[in-house]
Amino acid sequence: MAQVKLVQDKDASADVQAVFDDIRRSRNTDYVNNIWRALAVHPPLLKRFWSQMKQVMVQDSRIDALTKEFIYLAVSITNNCDYCINSHIAAARKKGMDDETLAELVEIVALANAGNRLTQGLQVEVDERFRPKAE
Amino acid sequence: MAQVKLVQDKDASADVQAVFDDIRRSRNTDYVNNIWRALAVHPPLLKRFWSQMKQVMVQDSRIDALTKEFIYLAVSITNNCDYCINSHIAAARKKGMDDETLAELVEIVALANAGNRLTQGLQVEVDERFRPKAE
Amino acid sequence: MAQVKLVQDKDASADVQAVFDDIRRSRNTDYVNNIWRALAVHPPLLKRFWSQMKQVMVQDSRIDALTKEFIYLAVSITNNCDYCINSHIAAARKKGMDDETLAELVEIVALANAGNRLTQGLQVEVDERFRPKAE
Amino acid sequence: MAQVKLVQDKDASADVQAVFDDIRRSRNTDYVNNIWRALAVHPPLLKRFWSQMKQVMVQDSRIDALTKEFIYLAVSITNNCDYCINSHIAAARKKGMDDETLAELVEIVALANAGNRLTQGLQVEVDERFRPKAE
Amino acid sequence: MAQVKLVQDKDASADVQAVFDDIRRSRNTDYVNNIWRALAVHPPLLKRFWSQMKQVMVQDSRIDALTKEFIYLAVSITNNCDYCINSHIAAARKKGMDDETLAELVEIVALANAGNRLTQGLQVEVDERFRPKAE
Amino acid sequence: MAQVKLVQDKDASADVQAVFDDIRRSRNTDYVNNIWRALAVHPPLLKRFWSQMKQVMVQDSRIDALTKEFIYLAVSITNNCDYCINSHIAAARKKGMDDETLAELVEIVALANAGNRLTQGLQVEVDERFRPKAE
Repeated sequence: MAQVKLVQDKDASADVQAVFDDIRRSRNTDYVNNIWRALAVHPPLLKRFWSQMKQVMVQDSRIDALTKEFIYLAVSITNNCDYCINSHIAAARKKGMDDETLAELVEIVALANAGNRLTQGLQVEVDERFRPKAE
Repeated sequence: MAQVKLVQDKDASADVQAVFDDIRRSRNTDYVNNIWRALAVHPPLLKRFWSQMKQVMVQDSRIDALTKEFIYLAVSITNNCDYCINSHIAAARKKGMDDETLAELVEIVALANAGNRLTQGLQVEVDERFRPKAE
Repeated sequence: MAQVKLVQDKDASADVQAVFDDIRRSRNTDYVNNIWRALAVHPPLLKRFWSQMKQVMVQDSRIDALTKEFIYLAVSITNNCDYCINSHIAAARKKGMDDETLAELVEIVALANAGNRLTQGLQVEVDERFRPKAE
Repeated sequence: MAQVKLVQDKDASADVQAVFDDIRRSRNTDYVNNIWRALAVHPPLLKRFWSQMKQVMVQDSRIDALTKEFIYLAVSITNNCDYCINSHIAAARKKGMDDETLAELVEIVALANAGNRLTQGLQVEVDERFRPKAE
Repeated sequence: MAQVKLVQDKDASADVQAVFDDIRRSRNTDYVNNIWRALAVHPPLLKRFWSQMKQVMVQDSRIDALTKEFIYLAVSITNNCDYCINSHIAAARKKGMDDETLAELVEIVALANAGNRLTQGLQVEVDERFRPKAE
Repeated sequence: MAQVKLVQDKDASADVQAVFDDIRRSRNTDYVNNIWRALAVHPPLLKRFWSQMKQVMVQDSRIDALTKEFIYLAVSITNNCDYCINSHIAAARKKGMDDETLAELVEIVALANAGNRLTQGLQVEVDERFRPKAE
C-alpha cells in the first residue's frame, strides 16, 4: 500500500517495464520492491531516481558497496525513515552485515547524534585548524 | 568561543587534566580541540563523552576506523552540525580521505536524504520480506 | 487512538464544541478529525492551534490555498510526520492535486533535501550576493 | 541583519509599536531583540507569534518558567537553531541557570538524541504496555 | 519484534543478566522493556547505554527527575521517535504527569519548533548581547 | 570558501566547463554560484546534480516555477541550511516574491513544524479516511 497505486508488471508501460527489468538485472533478483512500484506512477521520476541509485550505489567507485549501505543506513536512521531502514538493513545483510555489526553501526550513529547536540548546545566555535581554507 | 568557558590546561582540575592527557595519547597529538575544553566545564560529562568516543570510535572493532568516520560524517551532515562536519572531515583526511572521496560520501548522503523523502512522501509500506521477524 | 482521550461531541464542553463547530463551518464538512479531538483535552491549546490554522491556512492571503498545502506537505514529509502527510494529502486532493502532481511535489522535496546536504557536506560559504543586507 | 528589514521603533506602525511595548512590559526590559524586529515586516505574523509566545511561555501555567526554557532549548538544540539556542540560553540564565546546569541539560538532550537512534536503528516495537489506549 | 532478536532472561549471558537485574533494581520494577532486550544482542553496547541512562536520567542531579523526562520527551517528539515518545510518556506519568501537563509540554515543543523556523527562514542574526563571550 | 577548492572557469575541464555554460544559459546569467564550483571537484557529481536541478526545477511542469521555489525553501528552512535558504530566497525574489510573501511562507513553514509536533507528541492515529488505500 501507498498513497499512490503500486504499478504491477502487467500494468507497466514500456518505459516503466524497462526500469523494472534493469532493477532486476542490476540486483540479480526477480523481486521489484514497493518504492519502485510507487514511483512508477510518474515514469520520469522513476527513471531519474533509479538512474541515481544505480550510478551512486550499484556501480563500483572509491567507496565499497557495504560501506555505502552503512552510510545510507546512518542517514535513514537519523531521519527515522522506517521503509529505508528496513530495506537497507536487508541490502546490507545480503552484503555480509551480521547482527553485531548492525548494533555497532547503530551505536556510532547514536554517538554522532549525541556529539552533534553537545557541540551545538554549548555553541562551540570551529577550531581554526579545522576550518575551510581560503579559496 | 562557546557559551561556556573553554578550560585551558593551566586551569584544569586533576580529573580534567587526566582526560586531556588521555585524548593526547589516544590520538597521538598535542592538540586538544574546543569541544573537549567546553565539556570540561562539567567534568563528569567530559569523562562520559570521552569514554564513549574512545570505546566506540578509537578502539578496534568490526567496522574499520575510516568507515566509522564516514558514518559519523553522514549523521553530522544530515543534522547540519558545522563543528562536527569540519572536525570529522579533518579526522577522515588524516585517515586517508581525499577530496573526491569526500564528494562521493556527500553524494551518498544526499541520495539517502532524497530517498528517505520519496518513500515517506508517497507513504510506501515496508515490503513483507524486509520487516522485522517475529520475536 | 492517541496518548490522550479523543473528545467526542457528546463529551465536549461549550468551549470545545464552539471550536468543533467552527472547524465544520470553515471546512464545509461534518467530519472533525482526530488531531482536533486529541487537542481538546486542553481547550486553550485547541483554541490557539485552530485559530492559527484558520488564519494562516484557511483565510485568503497572498499565497493560494493549494500552494499552502504543498508547503505544509513539504515540511511534513521532511519531518516524517505520518499523520500530517496523510491528512494534508487528503486536503490537497480536495483542492485538485492528482497523483502525478503529488509525485512531482515529492520529487522537489527529495531534491531539496539532497541539495541541502551537498551544500552542508562541502561546507560551501554563502555567495556575497545572496547574503542578508546590512540592516 | 536578516533577509528582511529589522523594523526600528521610529519606523514602526501603531500596530507594531503596540507589540514592541507589550514585549517590553511583559519581559521587564527596554530591549526588543532582532526576531521581533524582523517579524514586524508582516504585522499580523508579529502579533500572532508574540501572542503565542506570551500565552505559552510568559503566563503562569502548570510547568514553571525555567522548565519551559529547558524544553524550548532542548528543541532548539536538536534542530540546531543558533539564534534560538543563544537567545534562550540568555533567557534561562536570567531565570537562574548556571553553566553546570546548562551542561547537564545539554547532556540529557544528547542522550535522548542517541537513544532515539538506537531504538529506530534496531526497529524496536513499542511494548504493549506503553501503547496508546483504545479510545 | 525488532530487526534483531529480543534477548529473554533465559537466553541472557551473565553480563546481560547483570544489566537486566540492575535495570529492575534501579527502576523498582520487574519489567525489562524491549529496547534493552534488543541492545542485548551486543552486550558492550547494552552496558554503555544503560550506564549512561542510569547516570544521566536516574541518579540525582541539579535537574529534577520529572523535568528530565520533559527534556527527553521534547527531543523525542522533535525527532518523531514513536518508541521513545510512548515509553517516556509512560515514565513521566509514573512521576506525576497528567494529560493536561502533557498537552502543555507538547504545545511548548510545537512553539519552539515554529520559532526555530521563523528565525531561520528570515535569517535573523544573533543579537550582540546573546552571543558567546570571547574565550 | 568550502572544504574543497571552488573550481574557477580558467581551471575547469571541458566537462565542467560544459556544465557551467549550461547553468549560465538556463538561468540567463553570467554568474555561477559557489555550490556548482564546489561540486566541480567531482565532475560526475556536478553533472548529476545539475541535471536533476534542471529537469526538476527549471523545466516546465505541472507546478509553476515560483511554487517550486516555495517548496524548496520550505524544506531548506526546516533543515536549517543557510546556503540553501539564502540562495533560494534570491531565486524566489527574481521570480516575484516580496518581503511580505516571504514572511507568509515562513509562517506556513513554522505552523507545519508546530502541527507536526502536536500530532506526534500526542501520538494521534491517522483517521481511517486519510489512510493509503489497499493496493
